[in-house]
Amino acid sequence: MGLPVPLSGVVPPLCTPLTPSGEVDTRSLGSLVEHVLAAGAHAVFVLGSSGETAYLDDARRRTALRAAVDAVAGRVPVLAGVVDMTTARVLDHARAAAALGADALVATAPFYTATHPVEVRDHFRRIRAGAGLPLIAYDIPSSVPTRLDAGILLPLAEDGTLAGLKDSSGDLGGLRRLLVALRRRGLDASFAVLTGSELAVDGALLAGAHGVVPGLGNVDPAGYVRLYEHARAGRWAEAAAEQDRLAALFALTGTGDLAGMSWSASALGGFKAALHLLGVIDCPATAAPQHPLPGAAVDAVRHHLAEAGLL
Amino acid sequence: MGLPVPLSGVVPPLCTPLTPSGEVDTRSLGSLVEHVLAAGAHAVFVLGSSGETAYLDDARRRTALRAAVDAVAGRVPVLAGVVDMTTARVLDHARAAAALGADALVATAPFYTATHPVEVRDHFRRIRAGAGLPLIAYDIPSSVPTRLDAGILLPLAEDGTLAGLKDSSGDLGGLRRLLVALRRRGLDASFAVLTGSELAVDGALLAGAHGVVPGLGNVDPAGYVRLYEHARAGRWAEAAAEQDRLAALFALTGTGDLAGMSWSASALGGFKAALHLLGVIDCPATAAPQHPLPGAAVDAVRHHLAEAGLL
Amino acid sequence: MGLPVPLSGVVPPLCTPLTPSGEVDTRSLGSLVEHVLAAGAHAVFVLGSSGETAYLDDARRRTALRAAVDAVAGRVPVLAGVVDMTTARVLDHARAAAALGADALVATAPFYTATHPVEVRDHFRRIRAGAGLPLIAYDIPSSVPTRLDAGILLPLAEDGTLAGLKDSSGDLGGLRRLLVALRRRGLDASFAVLTGSELAVDGALLAGAHGVVPGLGNVDPAGYVRLYEHARAGRWAEAAAEQDRLAALFALTGTGDLAGMSWSASALGGFKAALHLLGVIDCPATAAPQHPLPGAAVDAVRHHLAEAGLL
Amino acid sequence: MGLPVPLSGVVPPLCTPLTPSGEVDTRSLGSLVEHVLAAGAHAVFVLGSSGETAYLDDARRRTALRAAVDAVAGRVPVLAGVVDMTTARVLDHARAAAALGADALVATAPFYTATHPVEVRDHFRRIRAGAGLPLIAYDIPSSVPTRLDAGILLPLAEDGTLAGLKDSSGDLGGLRRLLVALRRRGLDASFAVLTGSELAVDGALLAGAHGVVPGLGNVDPAGYVRLYEHARAGRWAEAAAEQDRLAALFALTGTGDLAGMSWSASALGGFKAALHLLGVIDCPATAAPQHPLPGAAVDAVRHHLAEAGLL
Repeated sequence: MGLPVPLSGVVPPLCTPLTPSGEVDTRSLGSLVEHVLAAGAHAVFVLGSSGETAYLDDARRRTALRAAVDAVAGRVPVLAGVVDMTTARVLDHARAAAALGADALVATAPFYTATHPVEVRDHFRRIRAGAGLPLIAYDIPSSVPTRLDAGILLPLAEDGTLAGLKDSSGDLGGLRRLLVALRRRGLDASFAVLTGSELAVDGALLAGAHGVVPGLGNVDPAGYVRLYEHARAGRWAEAAAEQDRLAALFALTGTGDLAGMSWSASALGGFKAALHLLGVIDCPATAAPQHPLPGAAVDAVRHHLAEAGLL
Repeated sequence: MGLPVPLSGVVPPLCTPLTPSGEVDTRSLGSLVEHVLAAGAHAVFVLGSSGETAYLDDARRRTALRAAVDAVAGRVPVLAGVVDMTTARVLDHARAAAALGADALVATAPFYTATHPVEVRDHFRRIRAGAGLPLIAYDIPSSVPTRLDAGILLPLAEDGTLAGLKDSSGDLGGLRRLLVALRRRGLDASFAVLTGSELAVDGALLAGAHGVVPGLGNVDPAGYVRLYEHARAGRWAEAAAEQDRLAALFALTGTGDLAGMSWSASALGGFKAALHLLGVIDCPATAAPQHPLPGAAVDAVRHHLAEAGLL
Repeated sequence: MGLPVPLSGVVPPLCTPLTPSGEVDTRSLGSLVEHVLAAGAHAVFVLGSSGETAYLDDARRRTALRAAVDAVAGRVPVLAGVVDMTTARVLDHARAAAALGADALVATAPFYTATHPVEVRDHFRRIRAGAGLPLIAYDIPSSVPTRLDAGILLPLAEDGTLAGLKDSSGDLGGLRRLLVALRRRGLDASFAVLTGSELAVDGALLAGAHGVVPGLGNVDPAGYVRLYEHARAGRWAEAAAEQDRLAALFALTGTGDLAGMSWSASALGGFKAALHLLGVIDCPATAAPQHPLPGAAVDAVRHHLAEAGLL
Repeated sequence: MGLPVPLSGVVPPLCTPLTPSGEVDTRSLGSLVEHVLAAGAHAVFVLGSSGETAYLDDARRRTALRAAVDAVAGRVPVLAGVVDMTTARVLDHARAAAALGADALVATAPFYTATHPVEVRDHFRRIRAGAGLPLIAYDIPSSVPTRLDAGILLPLAEDGTLAGLKDSSGDLGGLRRLLVALRRRGLDASFAVLTGSELAVDGALLAGAHGVVPGLGNVDPAGYVRLYEHARAGRWAEAAAEQDRLAALFALTGTGDLAGMSWSASALGGFKAALHLLGVIDCPATAAPQHPLPGAAVDAVRHHLAEAGLL
């Protein structure tokens, strides 16, 4: 269906439901797609960090993307993560995603290896040219230390390489400077700035961001759509109140901490436990080697859902 | 004059004007105090990062604090930075600041050495008990890697050790979670959350922060006061527009990059060059071993001031 | 041919020669194999960091491994890097490497995502079980922040999951503590500690390390074999002198710094320029998006080779 | 007594014994001086990280330095740490140390604030000029992120600003490159390279380092002197065996980990518990806010001492 220019609104980075044996549960993924589209999501992002992309082999990545494209069936754009270490590997994923019907790609700077701004720009240009789909840069310093600052992004916004940025840096000041610079150059109508900071969405929208890619939007997409609509209508106090409610709900990502799990297992396990408790997905398993949430943590997730009015 | 509970509003972290030979220029510091108070600042913060506290020996620190207390003359509260490696050293600064008339202290977690949350809490409790002044914790991960998260802060808010937080982490999501947790415990009326993220003030205030400690507020305190007043009155679009203007002005901190200077020399040199061009201070020198801004950078600062309507 | 227990000696992490169009140059890779085997290398490591594994798509990775296995033809063991983000992805590479005739695998801890020691141990156990080949853990904090310390490694040495460690951490003190702990448990005859610190090989061997995986060993494998033989024979002064010569030669990795390249492009470009100047490989190209070394840098590489007596 | 050129040998970074109430225990410090001098230490370093310099206010720092100078009484050189955030503050300590009779100073690059190589060099030049004592640079990236690489150090070695380096980076490869570069310039007879990597001393000496500053040398100075003498005499196998014994003893720094202490409290607490058990100091207390080692940890320290033949 193509990508709106600029892309805007709520774009949940979909979890990838798994079966108990670790296969992609395409039925549950379809159910999750309905869950977020029924809430009014404006697009979906498959194979991001919330989608456990780091844990999925190529076959599972492709199964997940195919299932999401099928389930969405053209109702909203499908963004596909093409996360890999550097250009040639990303291009393999990009071509596969294009063949499977993705509407746009989301790629990080090179990682695992050292890189340089000149190389980073070249990397994005090669991906854009090689795959023929709109490309969104993904700034996620917790995974990829190389930051995508205005010095890297503006030339790529100007020459059309990039259609936008998913900013998971948490650095709202940097996002502000980028937005001011884009407006000055008349690029804010063609380059979308999407925040991944799910607890600062009201502030990011107030600063002019076009949309949000909230992991927690798997669990409560309607909350994020309300927040977005409040912001669009200038109802900032209501937007902030909705964000406060979602910030409290976010506690469901931290229930596994005491058990000595990774942050990933705790947070993604929390999302999936919530989706399981809500009846959206069949099995709350996360991919190996992440361990499952212990029962007490699942109880805490249930408590947070109830407190947020979702159960 | 004591500290309002909770402290709120615009609290510029004052630059420390120096003479060409590197002494504290108390006349210019007095002039800077008038500059920010005339604009409506609600308090001042002496000996923070913008005040080059890392560069000032004990004698200069005390000269600067005394001059600021004298110039303020009880019109607003004076917060004093007591930045040092660990407890005993901080306590020396704290007692000196109390004797010089500071109304509150601002201290970081221990640095240079490894520490642990149990020790960090003990550190703040000892400082609070030893100095007898309200204490604000200073989270500045660019200088002090140990983060002050809700797990460290909430017990100290509850037992009255801390009167607030200056959050220079840039992490607006974490600030949101802290604010939600404080409100839940009924602590938001006694514990002040002040953001040091000078380009995300509108978002921080929308999230419920009590105030802002903006380095750029040395240069344009009136802008920050307008931004704060817009936010207090619920004029969020106007607040965001003012923040946009200030974000553009912030470019004056980056003029020295090309010359191979440290970020500190460039940013603090930019603030001081601006204050010198505005006629507030007599000499734009920063403390050794920082090098002065080159002439072309000063020209760029002048350009940014003009563009922001300040010259 | 199987892996000696414990693996020991000089194991060059082979560069992956490329054609001007970026394909794997299998002829040059064969020539590089002869270059290092003629010098007395005890094994080869394909698809490590020096092999630009981060830059090679799956097809190129497999081409390179197949070519190396063919060229080595059973004369020494072939270790294959199976570098990817987490378990399922690594397992895909591991099965491919087994099918292509690798004698052992080299894998890192999970990266891109957060992880936990319990997960890291589970990760290695799954790879060991799934691929049926001896497994060597790869500690390379510049690429994978999760450190592989004794607490993670010792249980995996004890239960036979791991056949050894490639330690590219540069932390010789940690290596010493690991070696002491292995000897105490009687594991030093079954678990091989190989240092990747190519400028501290004499010290690592003196501490009891079993061997070395030196990137610079692509260029001067004979130097590393001499160093190893001196150490084995207790000729420590001669070993140190050889290491000093190699440390001077290592300057060929830094010739690109001035041109604003990444460390990777400069270092790997330096290795490849040297191999090209020595007549070992046909083309000095590194993989995109790395840029080629400029001419002046190639001249500097030539100078360093001459100074080291290699040209 | 002046500083030998180049300084060489074993230079224990003395712990600062404290009384139960947190004052400097000058009697115990004198006893510690005798403990290390009786073992053959070639110099002592007061107010380093092992001396808890970050925890001592100015008065306690000066008390400790005075006591050490008095106890040493000219038998060996006394190096004084002058650790503070930047130049002016370091100069205050430097002048005090000179007045108290230190023979040389040890200073880090600026910390807490951002800095730049040009500023770092200027910083050391100002300290050298201002204090009139030989100056040793202190590279300790765990405390001061700015690395002191060859690009910073060589000009300062050449112009006589620096008399040496204390390298606590753990990066033996970098130390090797520096030593090779110093020899090439004929500077290795005037610039001393001292390793702080107490578990890789044999390797550092084999690489040509002049000496060692081992925290563990408080506990077992005789072991380090034996190690050094073996190395000087070319008895490398004996040096390595001694280093192995000391690496096992180093486990006494990690006994507090389980109790949730900081690394600092555990390691320095371990040194002090050992010195107390050995009868060298009267009280094992570390400075606040560090917590004391629990009893089980002290038992573990006793066990490690016994195993190393020291009890």
